[in-house]
Amino acid sequence: MLQNIRVVLVNTSHPGNIGGAARAMKNMGLSRLVLVDPQDFPSHEADARASGADDVLGGAQVVATLEQALVGCNLVFGTSARERRIPWPLVDPRECGAKVIEHAGEGEEIALVFGREYAGLTNEELQRCHFHVHIPSNPDFSSLNLAAAVQVLAYEVRMAWLAAEGQPSKVEKFEVTSVRSSELATMDEMELFYEHLEKTLVDIGFLDPEKPKHLMPRLRRLYGRSSVNRSEMSILRGILTETQKVARGEPHKRKDQ
Amino acid sequence: MLQNIRVVLVNTSHPGNIGGAARAMKNMGLSRLVLVDPQDFPSHEADARASGADDVLGGAQVVATLEQALVGCNLVFGTSARERRIPWPLVDPRECGAKVIEHAGEGEEIALVFGREYAGLTNEELQRCHFHVHIPSNPDFSSLNLAAAVQVLAYEVRMAWLAAEGQPSKVEKFEVTSVRSSELATMDEMELFYEHLEKTLVDIGFLDPEKPKHLMPRLRRLYGRSSVNRSEMSILRGILTETQKVARGEPHKRKDQ
Repeated sequence: MLQNIRVVLVNTSHPGNIGGAARAMKNMGLSRLVLVDPQDFPSHEADARASGADDVLGGAQVVATLEQALVGCNLVFGTSARERRIPWPLVDPRECGAKVIEHAGEGEEIALVFGREYAGLTNEELQRCHFHVHIPSNPDFSSLNLAAAVQVLAYEVRMAWLAAEGQPSKVEKFEVTSVRSSELATMDEMELFYEHLEKTLVDIGFLDPEKPKHLMPRLRRLYGRSSVNRSEMSILRGILTETQKVARGEPHKRKDQ
Repeated sequence: MLQNIRVVLVNTSHPGNIGGAARAMKNMGLSRLVLVDPQDFPSHEADARASGADDVLGGAQVVATLEQALVGCNLVFGTSARERRIPWPLVDPRECGAKVIEHAGEGEEIALVFGREYAGLTNEELQRCHFHVHIPSNPDFSSLNLAAAVQVLAYEVRMAWLAAEGQPSKVEKFEVTSVRSSELATMDEMELFYEHLEKTLVDIGFLDPEKPKHLMPRLRRLYGRSSVNRSEMSILRGILTETQKVARGEPHKRKDQ
């Protein structure tokens, strides 16, 4: 199940950190590395710091945008330094590891997303994540090295994996089956939904593109929390399509008039 | 109590690792670094990788032997790869963190000892330790970078410390505030929402009251899972109200027509 987990590094400046992250991943049994617009890759420095994790580095997928990195993902965790304006479901690394393994065990695709060395993830990027992960740290010196942050999360994933392999909980299995009878929508399907939702809200005059007032982030948070499955997604999309028809003044099937 | 904990690096080859270890320590709130016979220290590379943890690096004590490094210590943990000839009390990093905090809280002096990059600690050095700590890792690629190993143990020490202090391991201040300031919708508010949603879906012709097709139960399940808060509820109700206006053919605020 560890192969369902990808580590995504966004816009990394220092190739040494990419190498260090690859080594930390392989040490913990993770193998899938995705690099979003790295500033310097491939690089000898990355190779040197990978120190034998050449397969992880060589197999790294390089893409242009975070959206591309998350194609096919069901559950996304984004590392976050501190409080953000828009509150979001927040977990610590241990809770993150437990959730990752619970969902990976169900065959879902998981991403752990790490931001830039100096600036982290943007608010927009953070809003693409279901959960934010905060690594507890000294408030006066809180910024971890990128490879060190990858190490901590990968370590917690391995600890949770070992626990799950050692003693599978019957109760959990039952609960998981009952809740997830149908497949979750993927991140790209969720993005198409949010686009559709935004257009529809503009069409009905609820969302003013000039003054968006954090409306979309709030709705993303709401639906993101909900682990929307595919049949629910098709209902939501159907509602939006009908709403747009009505907004365009097209005849609709309303019966009581 | 974190000041009772010293990190001891034995015979380190690469100064970059000393810097990385200093940074990881400071990130986790540890400050006392002891270097046993380092091969290259002080060094610009150590300074660079410390990335602001200059005080830890500058305050590092350099000694010639492990014995000197452990003067005054009550409890010593040594990092170890799995198999050793001589069986020894073995803990994982989590148990190590818990024991460290338990004893540091009683005023004892604790040392976490890390070996050489390639050869680890010698048997003689390991026998000076009360406990061996093994960081769980991929059996085919088990050797962690030195600074990464320091990061994992320092992280577990911080997690145990936060738990002992009764502090949350994540920045919950913001989260809690947001949950309080935006209380969850009550059950009766949810019922009013479902009524409103149902009427709206009929208005736009998406729901046929003659053939409801389990649509409302599905939507109830979706929104019920999400723990909708009051401010989100007012957004959802607002969307429904605007949609109904549009369905009634009332003028709406759409700007692009």
